[in-house]
Amino acid sequence: MSGILSVIGTGPGDPRQMTPEAAAAVSDAEVFFGYGPYLDRLALGPHQRRIASDNREELGRARAALAQAAAGARVCVVSGGDPGVFAMAAAVCEAIEAGPDDWRAVDLVVVPGVTAMLAVAARIGAPLGHDFCALSLSDNLKPWEVITRRLRLAAEAGFVIALYNPISKARPWQLGEAFALLRGILPATTPVIFGRAAGRPDERIRIVPLAEADAGDADMATCVMIGSPETRIVARPGRSPLVYTPRFSAPASR
Amino acid sequence: MSGILSVIGTGPGDPRQMTPEAAAAVSDAEVFFGYGPYLDRLALGPHQRRIASDNREELGRARAALAQAAAGARVCVVSGGDPGVFAMAAAVCEAIEAGPDDWRAVDLVVVPGVTAMLAVAARIGAPLGHDFCALSLSDNLKPWEVITRRLRLAAEAGFVIALYNPISKARPWQLGEAFALLRGILPATTPVIFGRAAGRPDERIRIVPLAEADAGDADMATCVMIGSPETRIVARPGRSPLVYTPRFSAPASR
Repeated sequence: MSGILSVIGTGPGDPRQMTPEAAAAVSDAEVFFGYGPYLDRLALGPHQRRIASDNREELGRARAALAQAAAGARVCVVSGGDPGVFAMAAAVCEAIEAGPDDWRAVDLVVVPGVTAMLAVAARIGAPLGHDFCALSLSDNLKPWEVITRRLRLAAEAGFVIALYNPISKARPWQLGEAFALLRGILPATTPVIFGRAAGRPDERIRIVPLAEADAGDADMATCVMIGSPETRIVARPGRSPLVYTPRFSAPASR
Repeated sequence: MSGILSVIGTGPGDPRQMTPEAAAAVSDAEVFFGYGPYLDRLALGPHQRRIASDNREELGRARAALAQAAAGARVCVVSGGDPGVFAMAAAVCEAIEAGPDDWRAVDLVVVPGVTAMLAVAARIGAPLGHDFCALSLSDNLKPWEVITRRLRLAAEAGFVIALYNPISKARPWQLGEAFALLRGILPATTPVIFGRAAGRPDERIRIVPLAEADAGDADMATCVMIGSPETRIVARPGRSPLVYTPRFSAPASR
């Protein structure tokens, strides 16, 4: 008898940004798998079991969750943000593809959420108001040359670029190299947004021109966004500036 | 005395996918601006006034909302999905930049939501599980050559591509041309997802290989996603197949 596996996103961290659908999936489940700080966002009852694991153990976590669901349990896998964006839904699909046949019979429900770039964008205006891309800067699972090629093509295409996983202790230099590469393509005045912990008590959001962007201003909890040549800044007396990308593109645009 | 302007997203249409933060913004407001079908998703009280306008009148709607907020009203501008993705937040920022000084003094709050591509992705697995882009196919506000250039560079970069505004009565041929262009770059077997009205009663989600993708399968309520060369399909006996893009990229990848 097969159980159910829901893969949910908590949103960026503010409980008011987690959907009722995700909250209902949490209420219905009996065992929870996830990175500890994401599990900490849930108010679990005494009958609900939590199994925390490290952020880099996604595939093992997916396998353990699938094994329990295939055995009949009501299992919930917890991501921050949206589970489909650089998060657990892909790891669960990978595990199903490579796993035993009965994992394909599990009732899999992916529950979408507010991913980090949307929450950061909302705090400063509408930087993602026109064409954009989302790119993981982690070279743990893809070669650095693939990343630099994508960065270059995205900038040449005129996409606003949202960088996930910009930096970590094990990957200290990649973000600085990405800024250096983009300085060769984009105007020096292009707005760069460091959006840390949007909606959480320790939120910190900074806007700097690309020429001055410093990788040291990012950490693991930061989503870094680089504007397109059309992204604009609107000063507001007594308020923080707005950053937005217009809905239109000029013919002369790259 | 300046009022408040909240710009919210209802999510894709299932009320369980609208955040508590957006619901609270709705409760707090007294006048609502938006496209009629989005306003219809809200359960407004008798003291709450709704001002519906056509989908193509975004800038005029933003100006009308700002004028009321600047005059002291508690105003809510309503988008479907997320207000920051091809929606009202950018139009409001544009209006502020070009408008009278007192519009810059308005307390502007953008409330993020679940955008369509995340909801569609969740219904079929994790097609956005790795690097992706979101591109509006509408050439109302940008030249068609900008769009084809972005499509070409995105496909060459190996991004999964989510197309918003794929087709309308006034723009009948653009999606077919986009498929033709992409067939020249991507494998014929690349999965294409037609995700219509995800989470709503009239939801319809289809997966076809790029070689067979037919623009006639899309309408205004459809988000079309084109996989990358690495996007995979996992068959499941007795269940719909999963589509996902792995977290890793091979060195040989484009």
